[in-house]
Amino acid sequence: MTFHTTPRLPRGFTCASRNCGLKPTASDLALFVSEVDATAAAVFTRNHFPGAPIILGRETIRGGTLRAIVANSKCSNVATGDEGVRNARRMAAAAAAEIGTTADRVLVSSTGVIGVPLPIEKIERGLVGMRGDLGTDPMPGAEGIMTTDTHPKVLSMTVPGSDATITWIAKGAGMIEPNMATMLAYIFTDARVEREELDRMLRAAVRDTFNMLSIDTDTSTSDTCAVLANGLAGPVDATAFGEALTAGCLAMAEVIARDGEGATRMLRVKVRGAKDDHDARYIAKAINNSPLIKTMVHGADPNVGRILMAIGKCFDCTIAPDRTDAWVNGHQVVQGGRRLAFEDAVVRQALTTDTVELEVSLGVGASSATAFGCDLTKGYVDENAAYYSS
Amino acid sequence: MTFHTTPRLPRGFTCASRNCGLKPTASDLALFVSEVDATAAAVFTRNHFPGAPIILGRETIRGGTLRAIVANSKCSNVATGDEGVRNARRMAAAAAAEIGTTADRVLVSSTGVIGVPLPIEKIERGLVGMRGDLGTDPMPGAEGIMTTDTHPKVLSMTVPGSDATITWIAKGAGMIEPNMATMLAYIFTDARVEREELDRMLRAAVRDTFNMLSIDTDTSTSDTCAVLANGLAGPVDATAFGEALTAGCLAMAEVIARDGEGATRMLRVKVRGAKDDHDARYIAKAINNSPLIKTMVHGADPNVGRILMAIGKCFDCTIAPDRTDAWVNGHQVVQGGRRLAFEDAVVRQALTTDTVELEVSLGVGASSATAFGCDLTKGYVDENAAYYSS
Repeated sequence: MTFHTTPRLPRGFTCASRNCGLKPTASDLALFVSEVDATAAAVFTRNHFPGAPIILGRETIRGGTLRAIVANSKCSNVATGDEGVRNARRMAAAAAAEIGTTADRVLVSSTGVIGVPLPIEKIERGLVGMRGDLGTDPMPGAEGIMTTDTHPKVLSMTVPGSDATITWIAKGAGMIEPNMATMLAYIFTDARVEREELDRMLRAAVRDTFNMLSIDTDTSTSDTCAVLANGLAGPVDATAFGEALTAGCLAMAEVIARDGEGATRMLRVKVRGAKDDHDARYIAKAINNSPLIKTMVHGADPNVGRILMAIGKCFDCTIAPDRTDAWVNGHQVVQGGRRLAFEDAVVRQALTTDTVELEVSLGVGASSATAFGCDLTKGYVDENAAYYSS
Repeated sequence: MTFHTTPRLPRGFTCASRNCGLKPTASDLALFVSEVDATAAAVFTRNHFPGAPIILGRETIRGGTLRAIVANSKCSNVATGDEGVRNARRMAAAAAAEIGTTADRVLVSSTGVIGVPLPIEKIERGLVGMRGDLGTDPMPGAEGIMTTDTHPKVLSMTVPGSDATITWIAKGAGMIEPNMATMLAYIFTDARVEREELDRMLRAAVRDTFNMLSIDTDTSTSDTCAVLANGLAGPVDATAFGEALTAGCLAMAEVIARDGEGATRMLRVKVRGAKDDHDARYIAKAINNSPLIKTMVHGADPNVGRILMAIGKCFDCTIAPDRTDAWVNGHQVVQGGRRLAFEDAVVRQALTTDTVELEVSLGVGASSATAFGCDLTKGYVDENAAYYSS
């Protein structure tokens, strides 16, 4: 699977972003538009306190057809009660009026601080005339949804054996351990795909990609992953499309992991030989989420006994200590549950890479899973000790 | 329940500590002795990779009688295979020889880096003559088991209505989310208590105290909590003893939380109105463990929407958003699932206390639970990015 060197939107899709006054100067309002109706599917956060845009989005996506997505950053419109939902509806209506469609075909996203009223007037004013800014470059849209991301996140790919394009636009950074979806991830394609199939393929793709991603174990109240297929490139081979969809979600999950709040290294944890799928996923996540693993990776400290600690705290999983092996970037450090006598300097050197891959072989079954994350740094503490105030 | 101003050991107990060469100069070897056989109970880590002292300790505690505990810091003797268990047995035998008892009456603990062979010769040499150092001051023993703790941890209390004393000696700091016990916590008493009752009361006390404590969600491979009752003060009222035992474990859990690695504030999370005990404990722990809550507390940032996020990510718990209220150090910040319009400065000020207490009322049942933890700081990252190498 090869991504385009310069990412682009599929035919019929345009986007734009603006500063509408929520942030001092940076883009804080983004609009993504399909020139024709697009078949759509989406998955949302399972958090018990979903934001107003999620409550509305679940209603909107039942229609199965979208023309646009409108998103703002800085304020997530969560824990804002009925007024929050009314504001989300006003946001959909304002975007619909601007591009000439109905509010039920506009998906709304908001991201930022929880519990602050949405400045809906600023957003409504900001949307006026935005149609004139729409262009085929995906970058302005990706910039408009950033919060603590250090760079806009866009990937695109041609579906093998076809003329169709898939484009992924996402934001990530923190409060990320999605369960049914991730932060904001929008997928646009000009392939023609039936709604039920699109929904099924989206859920399958998300399961092993965004749902295996964790920056900090905290699950956002705003997570949304939506796919819009406008059909302008005609039908595609379903297998090729599904594989491309998953490959892009995987690549985007790694892009988000690498840009986790304060992160200096990406962490990839591969578990194999697990008793079943549950154990493989659970153990991969436990290692990926362990603060002591994350700080070890940050410091390139070859304190590899912590890998056994993190496996061992999965009380309800099947573990055979005598059959447990582990590797750090290809160097075996644990064999049969015992730490090998390795040269500290060699493993320390192996840990100083941009991506650290920890592999674990459990020797008790045939299931495997991979989790994605990042190191834990002082930068994460700095960002999150003053996120609201800054 | 009032603790002694100057903690002391119960009658018949003595302790000592020494530097035996594991650390450069600080005490690294501790010995606790009862002059007569003591009835004993203990709970150990549930980690799948228990240290050699845990493997041996489970065997030892089945005897139900102890005369001594010997503990070293710097090296945890975990993931060291059969040789590790042989070394733990040698450590018990050496302590037994020094004080004139048998190895099956000596409980062994080791704490420190995982996966490094135990320097057993240094420990054996260190134990020689240590009997002559034994004294009734608990401080040398508490100092001898410290790792990243910033101070020795000792509490003592007279059991109400009796002449009996209970003394708690513990170490904490990091890799702390015990499940069947906590790090190293030793409880000594001269009360006379039957073994089955002692075991039952220990498990009851640990459940709501050490088992609700988390510094960093990581479960040590060495957790041990043991109680020794030598009976020299005669029988006590069982209810008074059980209440005192729990009160001391609670106080010690808070002492450990407050001294978590890098911590600047203690965090106490009280959940009430939960559907059942499982939900109350699960939600209290989820809030207590959330990196975004912990950094908010660190920065005294009134980003209280994160409390709802952390409750909401407990997918399998019963939550009624409209009935969810929350308080920060007594200031109500959430009502009916909505963030209240409060003065930021007031809540920011409320957060600048040595202990931050978050209270949540779920309004769906009658169960409650309290969890104990600390803030997440750059100090935690510093300590754990180079724990092995430093």
